[in-house]
Amino acid sequence: MSGRHLLQIPGPTNVPDRILQAISRPTIDHRGPEFRDMAADILVRLPLIFKATGPVVTFPASGTGAWEAALVNCLSPNDRVLIYETGHFASTWCRLAQKLSLQTTVLPTDWRHGVDAEVLAETLEQDKAGSIKAVCLVHNETSTGVCSDIQKARAAMNQTGHPALLMVDTISSLASIDYCHDDWGVDVTIAGSQKGLMLPPGLSFNAVSDKALHAARSAAMPKAYWDWQDVIDANQSQLFPYTPATNLLFGLREAIAMLLEEGLDQVFARHARLAEATRCAVKAWGLELLCLDPDRYSNSLTAVMMPQGHDADALRNVILDRCDMSLGNGLGQLAGKVFRIGHLGDFNELMLASALSGIEMGLTLAEVPHKPGGAQAAMDYLSDTSPRP
Amino acid sequence: MSGRHLLQIPGPTNVPDRILQAISRPTIDHRGPEFRDMAADILVRLPLIFKATGPVVTFPASGTGAWEAALVNCLSPNDRVLIYETGHFASTWCRLAQKLSLQTTVLPTDWRHGVDAEVLAETLEQDKAGSIKAVCLVHNETSTGVCSDIQKARAAMNQTGHPALLMVDTISSLASIDYCHDDWGVDVTIAGSQKGLMLPPGLSFNAVSDKALHAARSAAMPKAYWDWQDVIDANQSQLFPYTPATNLLFGLREAIAMLLEEGLDQVFARHARLAEATRCAVKAWGLELLCLDPDRYSNSLTAVMMPQGHDADALRNVILDRCDMSLGNGLGQLAGKVFRIGHLGDFNELMLASALSGIEMGLTLAEVPHKPGGAQAAMDYLSDTSPRP
Amino acid sequence: MSGRHLLQIPGPTNVPDRILQAISRPTIDHRGPEFRDMAADILVRLPLIFKATGPVVTFPASGTGAWEAALVNCLSPNDRVLIYETGHFASTWCRLAQKLSLQTTVLPTDWRHGVDAEVLAETLEQDKAGSIKAVCLVHNETSTGVCSDIQKARAAMNQTGHPALLMVDTISSLASIDYCHDDWGVDVTIAGSQKGLMLPPGLSFNAVSDKALHAARSAAMPKAYWDWQDVIDANQSQLFPYTPATNLLFGLREAIAMLLEEGLDQVFARHARLAEATRCAVKAWGLELLCLDPDRYSNSLTAVMMPQGHDADALRNVILDRCDMSLGNGLGQLAGKVFRIGHLGDFNELMLASALSGIEMGLTLAEVPHKPGGAQAAMDYLSDTSPRP
Amino acid sequence: MSGRHLLQIPGPTNVPDRILQAISRPTIDHRGPEFRDMAADILVRLPLIFKATGPVVTFPASGTGAWEAALVNCLSPNDRVLIYETGHFASTWCRLAQKLSLQTTVLPTDWRHGVDAEVLAETLEQDKAGSIKAVCLVHNETSTGVCSDIQKARAAMNQTGHPALLMVDTISSLASIDYCHDDWGVDVTIAGSQKGLMLPPGLSFNAVSDKALHAARSAAMPKAYWDWQDVIDANQSQLFPYTPATNLLFGLREAIAMLLEEGLDQVFARHARLAEATRCAVKAWGLELLCLDPDRYSNSLTAVMMPQGHDADALRNVILDRCDMSLGNGLGQLAGKVFRIGHLGDFNELMLASALSGIEMGLTLAEVPHKPGGAQAAMDYLSDTSPRP
Repeated sequence: MSGRHLLQIPGPTNVPDRILQAISRPTIDHRGPEFRDMAADILVRLPLIFKATGPVVTFPASGTGAWEAALVNCLSPNDRVLIYETGHFASTWCRLAQKLSLQTTVLPTDWRHGVDAEVLAETLEQDKAGSIKAVCLVHNETSTGVCSDIQKARAAMNQTGHPALLMVDTISSLASIDYCHDDWGVDVTIAGSQKGLMLPPGLSFNAVSDKALHAARSAAMPKAYWDWQDVIDANQSQLFPYTPATNLLFGLREAIAMLLEEGLDQVFARHARLAEATRCAVKAWGLELLCLDPDRYSNSLTAVMMPQGHDADALRNVILDRCDMSLGNGLGQLAGKVFRIGHLGDFNELMLASALSGIEMGLTLAEVPHKPGGAQAAMDYLSDTSPRP
Repeated sequence: MSGRHLLQIPGPTNVPDRILQAISRPTIDHRGPEFRDMAADILVRLPLIFKATGPVVTFPASGTGAWEAALVNCLSPNDRVLIYETGHFASTWCRLAQKLSLQTTVLPTDWRHGVDAEVLAETLEQDKAGSIKAVCLVHNETSTGVCSDIQKARAAMNQTGHPALLMVDTISSLASIDYCHDDWGVDVTIAGSQKGLMLPPGLSFNAVSDKALHAARSAAMPKAYWDWQDVIDANQSQLFPYTPATNLLFGLREAIAMLLEEGLDQVFARHARLAEATRCAVKAWGLELLCLDPDRYSNSLTAVMMPQGHDADALRNVILDRCDMSLGNGLGQLAGKVFRIGHLGDFNELMLASALSGIEMGLTLAEVPHKPGGAQAAMDYLSDTSPRP
Repeated sequence: MSGRHLLQIPGPTNVPDRILQAISRPTIDHRGPEFRDMAADILVRLPLIFKATGPVVTFPASGTGAWEAALVNCLSPNDRVLIYETGHFASTWCRLAQKLSLQTTVLPTDWRHGVDAEVLAETLEQDKAGSIKAVCLVHNETSTGVCSDIQKARAAMNQTGHPALLMVDTISSLASIDYCHDDWGVDVTIAGSQKGLMLPPGLSFNAVSDKALHAARSAAMPKAYWDWQDVIDANQSQLFPYTPATNLLFGLREAIAMLLEEGLDQVFARHARLAEATRCAVKAWGLELLCLDPDRYSNSLTAVMMPQGHDADALRNVILDRCDMSLGNGLGQLAGKVFRIGHLGDFNELMLASALSGIEMGLTLAEVPHKPGGAQAAMDYLSDTSPRP
Repeated sequence: MSGRHLLQIPGPTNVPDRILQAISRPTIDHRGPEFRDMAADILVRLPLIFKATGPVVTFPASGTGAWEAALVNCLSPNDRVLIYETGHFASTWCRLAQKLSLQTTVLPTDWRHGVDAEVLAETLEQDKAGSIKAVCLVHNETSTGVCSDIQKARAAMNQTGHPALLMVDTISSLASIDYCHDDWGVDVTIAGSQKGLMLPPGLSFNAVSDKALHAARSAAMPKAYWDWQDVIDANQSQLFPYTPATNLLFGLREAIAMLLEEGLDQVFARHARLAEATRCAVKAWGLELLCLDPDRYSNSLTAVMMPQGHDADALRNVILDRCDMSLGNGLGQLAGKVFRIGHLGDFNELMLASALSGIEMGLTLAEVPHKPGGAQAAMDYLSDTSPRP
């Protein structure tokens, strides 16, 4: 097919050339001075992306590995974790905890709203015995496009005085939607490389609070690959306890540089603006957003409900075949019912125009009932909110 | 700036990754077997792109060099050439001929129409002495978006029985708009790498007829770098008479492969479709096309007239600043009066949607009077003409 | 520094441009048809490299992760594993097993010999209760340059009739030294991407026998990220249970293609030849090989003893500073006492000449007592054994 | 073939990854601000490489084009040029001048010595009529490895008071061997991209003195593509008169940066050191250098005579087949009689060790009589002259 493929799944995102070039540099000795210089740079600047002052532990692993790392470092066998099931990924994290022999308490949702801080608080208050050792929340649910209010959840936890650790998945929010590991009082932040960090998949992260580090000292779950302490110790000398994914680290250094050059505030504002334009398009089409709470709309992706009787995957296939664009599928109970538009990472207004035009053409070609003018509405929003020259 | 720059000038065009990767391979010995294998491949397949059976001479040079090569190989000092001034590039070619001490007869146009075969024929008929040694035509005027009918021009020349050579510039048409060096009776075809061939600039070409080769034998203009015969002789052994631009040749081999994989007919149909969609947008905006003859609309670029009192470069600057897209400027007498949209090369429907959306946003932001809905009209055209799944 | 860095640590190895280009392709949808085509190709052809007919499970992880995966899939808490400590990496694997709460029985060596099949057999025979559930061997010890005879070890195990699983680390032997997962009766083979596979680090592998799969069904260690079954199930549809390291998989596909194009037998012969040349150099220098058993010399790396009173790291620093070449350091109890020359992966005779010349210059500059002529001796060996044209 | 190809022809040279990455960036608008910033940088810093204060004109062309440009800008039809035929390239330049209808006076040599300043002076003195308009010298003859003394030649010219322009080809010396366009009183310096500048071929250069610019104003040879004034004028606005070879300019900017980072003096010292080591090897082999004047040995390449009855191309083929290294062939009257070792550009001690080891192995395999120990001798020279740590 001629021209450029458009990767509008909600991650992996379109990796910029600057990062692709970085990861294609010849691999170097992971114990030599050039590597250590790079590691020193990453170790100092990566926490800025998390707004963390403590360590950020980097794993050569997918985001799923960082979920596992958070649990096995802080918990002991049969510990209980409270998981707020805001969508497919929260649910998957829960299954992972169960596979690791942890007890789970699940707070259900309709997958169309975020975390309810009051429900969370109530649940913790009922846990007089303190059996819940960790609360697991997903900041931005990649399967639904609902972004929960972590600050409020933390405040609610604080009010109960419950000592559980707070673990937050920011896989599809970090470096796209404002997030403050320290200020929001998060104990373990889980992140991955392939979304707002604009890298290919293959790296994942745990930002860790003092409280989490303290918990880790007495946690009894067996751990080796995921052991934070080994990484933190080796990082003192700009090393890793086992062979790091050197070429992805080349890309990580570049990604951090790009984000800091643009400025995190500008990065977040850009995502917010492109997300709002996307929602303008969806509304203009007369389609329904999956997320029912406007305060909780995600700025990194938008999940759109298919009209009754129409299959999202059929639409996605038409768009892939005709327009060479990939969209995200519905996951778990949403399979076939929604499609997801990723609008995060290395992304700008004209790329969004492409994406929305492709969806609109696809809706027409797949004969999905909709009103025309979605892409136009997005463009109008962007023009209207652009400062005059 | 975040996201991808959109290069919608009418060349250089967006170079696909496959070609960028090819040109970044380590340079090799230009006299060794690996090079010769590549040269053999190019020498066999490059003529297919010109629909030529004779030699195509490749120069490490810009397209301007290929203009010069056409003239110095076939002509003698003070020979006369007839140049049909269909736009800025025809006019520049004329100046080049004059700098080379050739006599020029210029057939003027309003830069909004193509070659008039009757006018051409009349002019040749008046040249009873046969002083005109070559007719220089631009197939597709990159400065105006007018594509002349070369076949008709040749037929008119034939009818006069005038022996002048026919030289045709296909710099912005080759591999985008159907062109037949042999069947149309062209003697020298001039082309460059940076348009339909999807390469960076730096290579240019002369496809040469037997008649032109014959003329070259007695032509008296001094020539060395541009001497066809040296190249043709060296090419017999898959070599070049001086160091070739090896890495651009890596790209050329890949470009030819990509074009033949897609199929030239499909390449031309794609360009035609995207060009028509572009014109739908311009009409919907209520703007005027520079080209006044619908039969001669270019399929590789569209030049759009600015409304009175509005400067095209101011618009282009807004679009570059806000939307990170480059458009072509007005050249020569058209400076400030038109902007040019390149829609050729490695290009597809969603890239066009990007480009048109960016122009529409730019028109709004620069407060250029226009009707909304141009991008939408293009999209509608594309949807309407797309086969149903 | 001018010119190319030479990466002669025993892995990561010099990644060829073809693979660096592959991993720098734009990331694609890991659930789309293009990805599935690639996965299908890898799933069919990767086992050929292991000479395995069963599944090879690929993890986005370092080799250390593949060690952990082997253990957690097959074993239950407090199970006993027998580890033959042939060097630093065997010892590290042992510590990893202990961190995972497994019981370990360690068979010590002087780190200068390979596995002694008789000692192994005796140990198993004494385990009448069958408490040992797995035997962990390192095929090629990256820290010592000793390559153990796995076939012999398996035969010895078979003779005892002991039911323990056989797990073999081939991290620095796979695709460099002949290895037969099926024929040698190995249950779990552990491998990584950054050595003979010529990739950057970030992928690791478990080739799995039926017996191991069977054991996995009743194994009680908690596992999630490393769970073979999830991967094997998803692989049925050319998918992975979590986001795979797409760009490294681009490289893996290319690496497999390169190895099969060269032919595994030729790959092994090339490594054997370059390794023998390296040993010729070491002998000519009058230095001592760490490996004391000529039958067990490694063909992928050579560890060289420093003369008494001379520090290997001082030598390595001189060579890095002056010659821009990285060599492997002494690990664990060998720190400062040996340097290690990697001669594996994408490597040829002239690269070896570079490496040995750099070492010889370094020995001189660092004033390490040695005889000159090592590089010359290697070259002579290569010339002598090269078929005459 | 496994491992890296070694490109030891005397240009194109081994292009460093940093430059290959630069030239693989997406092509940009050659009239936009990003391009102009790059052009501004190049226009300021490129003259530093020539040690020139006047303009350096860059052509999208091979070095041969820059020869032609020098002549057509300064001369009029039938002007006489004096060419000192120090080797194949001087001879080729002469043929080019003749093809351009210039008169040529050729001073012959045995191709084993450089320019003899006295002979040059005598010749000019005899030209009482001042018919010689330009003296054409090759600084470093790529076909012979003889580097002429340009300063001395200029001094001799000055003493005669002859007004001829001095044109110097530095194609294989620029950025490898010290060269001072201004201080040495050169009027036109000819250079190319693919040698000391470490780029792929495709760009060439004329550094131009005031005297040459003045001559150009009245020179009557027809010129268009090569017209300096058009380039100089366009360069005032950081533009070029026709589409420049953008991606090679990306590389040029990077090449200049690399050279200035290393420092020109260090670049020259590095080349001198590696060249001397190469000559040590040749002497140790008992082979004869083509250059007979030790003061004129080239620091960028070495041409080696084959023993009687042995064919250089047979040797080169063996080395290419067995060692994957390209060497330069004998050109013109030297065909088959010499091979040429390029030791210029992005090159270091271990790359040289590779190259010399490959030649030594090739000599053995091709059964060319020689003494062993050449590579060793080079290495000894390098060790002996390396400062102790």
